[in-house]
Amino acid sequence: MLNRRRKKQIEFGKRSQRKGRYQNLGSAGLQNNILSEVGSSSLSPHNTQSLVNVSQNEMLRDYESRTKLLFDDIEPVLKEILSHQTRSGFKRWANEQLFLHLGVKLEEAAWDMDESSNSYSFFQDLFSQIVFKQFLRMSEDFFNNDPLQGQNRKEAEEIFREAGIHALDITPCADGRLAHFISYVLRLPYSVARRKAHAGALFDVSESVRNWVFIEHSRFREGMPNNAAEPTRFLKMAVYHYSKVDPSHQGCAAHGSDDKKAAEAAKAKLQDFRQAIENRFGCGSTVETMLIGLNTDNDTLKVHIPNQQGQVCLDRYIETDQLYSNATNMSASEARVLIESEIDNCNLQKNSTIPRPELKKLIAWLVTNNFSQIQYVKEYEQGLYEDIGHAERFIGIGNGFEEVQLRNLCYYSFLDTIEEGVNDIDVGIKIFKGLNVKRGLPIPIIIRCDYDGRVPGSKTRAVEKARRIEKAVHSRYQELSSCGLLQTMGTLRDNTGARPAEKLI
Amino acid sequence: MLNRRRKKQIEFGKRSQRKGRYQNLGSAGLQNNILSEVGSSSLSPHNTQSLVNVSQNEMLRDYESRTKLLFDDIEPVLKEILSHQTRSGFKRWANEQLFLHLGVKLEEAAWDMDESSNSYSFFQDLFSQIVFKQFLRMSEDFFNNDPLQGQNRKEAEEIFREAGIHALDITPCADGRLAHFISYVLRLPYSVARRKAHAGALFDVSESVRNWVFIEHSRFREGMPNNAAEPTRFLKMAVYHYSKVDPSHQGCAAHGSDDKKAAEAAKAKLQDFRQAIENRFGCGSTVETMLIGLNTDNDTLKVHIPNQQGQVCLDRYIETDQLYSNATNMSASEARVLIESEIDNCNLQKNSTIPRPELKKLIAWLVTNNFSQIQYVKEYEQGLYEDIGHAERFIGIGNGFEEVQLRNLCYYSFLDTIEEGVNDIDVGIKIFKGLNVKRGLPIPIIIRCDYDGRVPGSKTRAVEKARRIEKAVHSRYQELSSCGLLQTMGTLRDNTGARPAEKLI
Repeated sequence: MLNRRRKKQIEFGKRSQRKGRYQNLGSAGLQNNILSEVGSSSLSPHNTQSLVNVSQNEMLRDYESRTKLLFDDIEPVLKEILSHQTRSGFKRWANEQLFLHLGVKLEEAAWDMDESSNSYSFFQDLFSQIVFKQFLRMSEDFFNNDPLQGQNRKEAEEIFREAGIHALDITPCADGRLAHFISYVLRLPYSVARRKAHAGALFDVSESVRNWVFIEHSRFREGMPNNAAEPTRFLKMAVYHYSKVDPSHQGCAAHGSDDKKAAEAAKAKLQDFRQAIENRFGCGSTVETMLIGLNTDNDTLKVHIPNQQGQVCLDRYIETDQLYSNATNMSASEARVLIESEIDNCNLQKNSTIPRPELKKLIAWLVTNNFSQIQYVKEYEQGLYEDIGHAERFIGIGNGFEEVQLRNLCYYSFLDTIEEGVNDIDVGIKIFKGLNVKRGLPIPIIIRCDYDGRVPGSKTRAVEKARRIEKAVHSRYQELSSCGLLQTMGTLRDNTGARPAEKLI
Repeated sequence: MLNRRRKKQIEFGKRSQRKGRYQNLGSAGLQNNILSEVGSSSLSPHNTQSLVNVSQNEMLRDYESRTKLLFDDIEPVLKEILSHQTRSGFKRWANEQLFLHLGVKLEEAAWDMDESSNSYSFFQDLFSQIVFKQFLRMSEDFFNNDPLQGQNRKEAEEIFREAGIHALDITPCADGRLAHFISYVLRLPYSVARRKAHAGALFDVSESVRNWVFIEHSRFREGMPNNAAEPTRFLKMAVYHYSKVDPSHQGCAAHGSDDKKAAEAAKAKLQDFRQAIENRFGCGSTVETMLIGLNTDNDTLKVHIPNQQGQVCLDRYIETDQLYSNATNMSASEARVLIESEIDNCNLQKNSTIPRPELKKLIAWLVTNNFSQIQYVKEYEQGLYEDIGHAERFIGIGNGFEEVQLRNLCYYSFLDTIEEGVNDIDVGIKIFKGLNVKRGLPIPIIIRCDYDGRVPGSKTRAVEKARRIEKAVHSRYQELSSCGLLQTMGTLRDNTGARPAEKLI
């Protein structure tokens, strides 16, 4: 398994060149400059693929590179700083160096090595504190500056509405290689979808039903997002994944790298959800479901095409890498015609009915969005990720985590209790034993509990919940926790607006 | 602390007289005879209190006595049987004796003492198995025969509807001395209310909001229980408790027997709930709340009277024991007038507004219902329970448990995970260390997960949930579990009808 970040080296000798490199991050300056250059719908005339949004790719690449650096430089910078521990005025100097290279400062007291601790646990504590600081900074940047333009959801919402969809709920696998699924792979604004990641895409059907009821109730009571009288549907999407380069090792850990099992399990969950709604709330309450497979080597997709009744079949799908190749040198409109006809053909060839026209249009749009991502991987990753395996920087548990939109940044599991989510976290801990623990680095776990800022008491309840989850994590992984190899930070967020995460004190 | 059940002795010498005593339980015979005699609205002409339903009291007493015997005879019967372990044909004989005295049989293999176990753990296993068998039998009786006529909810529903209430959700304390609150203390049919018991009545506001959304959504979508256009409300009731005889020991364990704290905490939860709904879903979504205190010595009540805006105050309440005394020798209609005027006076004397007339009527009705219970305690318990302290027979965790409607039968905590409900169960375990463990008896814990029989997959999910909770209980109380002092049984129930609990195999 390759892991790009391990190859990074901070060159302290050259630090004057890099001075101030991170200092502007967190202010809107950099992003605004980039955004003003690209424009969200500009298509490159130089690309053989007419549907690729080259300027958007540039913007996304810039965000990915500079955000990942926030995390990847921590280890070498910290090690270098600590090698100067004996110098006079170390604490102040250390903080200066930290700010210079990573753009953050710690409390000066953090640089005091406790007499009772050893240099090993001292390093672990500092490492985690810096990871957590960087996360908070990233969150601030994400919500205040909207670097991915994800708060502008009007266009996407209209496209979904035209397809008869009023709400979108996506369950990708918790695997970090799917963390960019919404903003990168499908090029959707993050705010248009609710994401609930689970290992193996095995979402909690009862929780999804509760969520559906909340959304439907808002339609009845408040006409939000649209009036209940409109015959639109809730769309639940499940995303499994696989690797074509190394199928038996780099597939889904929760399903033992067995692609078929992964796809079947996600499909079964979707069916259960659909049936739970229909049987409990009657036929008028049908939901739409969508099953997608992601090749984590290069972000190409298998899109399972629903028939007229919305049913999917495991062996009835289109592959976006094929379509991308076939559409090379076509005009945009020719390519769109090709995609739509391939969607119909896919079903007809398997003796099934074609999907409803509005849904076909939606799928075709998602496929064209994915073309940009295919080009992204071709251009910036030579068509194949160097880190085809796990390379997550931290684990996120709880709900929300909208600011996590980058591949391999975070292993994210949606949960309310460790008791219910334990399988997900066990998988995450296993991954991080390989990534961090075996190299002496702690596993940083960020807990997130969202609250509703309109409701007094909601924040207090979120605080209690975050504390409960934090306690349960340490209790579950006591061995790692007791020797400092598992470190946690609780965070809260008022999810009624674009507000950054707050650290739980 | 007195504990009636400890004084019971089974007289094996007299067993011929008792032959077959329990054999009819579970068939409708006994109940139907009783029911046909009493009629639900017969009022006794011989009682000084005109509002007391004497025949209902007789029916309730009969049910209480015979149901508690199912559990209280287990220890002496089992000990007596085991003292004959050396006789030939022991297993068959033991089962015969068990059936004769307790009306249940075990698998014959259960009477085989495993070579690896000792007589102590052998006894514990058998004891728990019999408790669980009796519970299943009780559940069957309850749902099949409706001994408390709790499936007939029409009249009560109409009274609530007239008061502008379309749904009732009650949170009593988890304490077993409140387990009969619905069917006995308030004389409501069990099926008219949803009960979610929590230690200290500290219910989960978020869960209650979710439940509210489900109910309101059904009104919009299905017109059930009534159409959303009707200006009715959801009523949430919280019930704290206290003891006047021994206030500093027999009050609420979760609040350190501090009555004021208990009342304040319940009131705060109600306010939080009300505010969460109003702030999240707008003013048209106001819920009704009601705060009641129960004196567990004799089942008399403090009913906190809401003002015109529905707000309650801790020191503004009526006491049903006072009202009961004052109404002695009055006619039913005089007594009703007295109660209603006392409700208004209560608020006027504290310079508050009187409650809405329809709510006053509802409260007055609940008070008259409580009069029957006051008389019940006077007649059958000499006005003061002998077991003024804890005397629960088992712990129930999960949801549902409608068949538990008897005082001190079960310590019941509503929960979805041990992680969230741990405070409740800790209190329960502490109680049972005193009741059972110190006498060498195991703590029997029954887990209940309801499912929706209309929804395929719902049962499977309930099975998984029950297993998860069962595992978490054993893990949390490992010390007790490992030496057989904590025993569990998982149960499921299809809550779409009057179906008994099913044992999880």
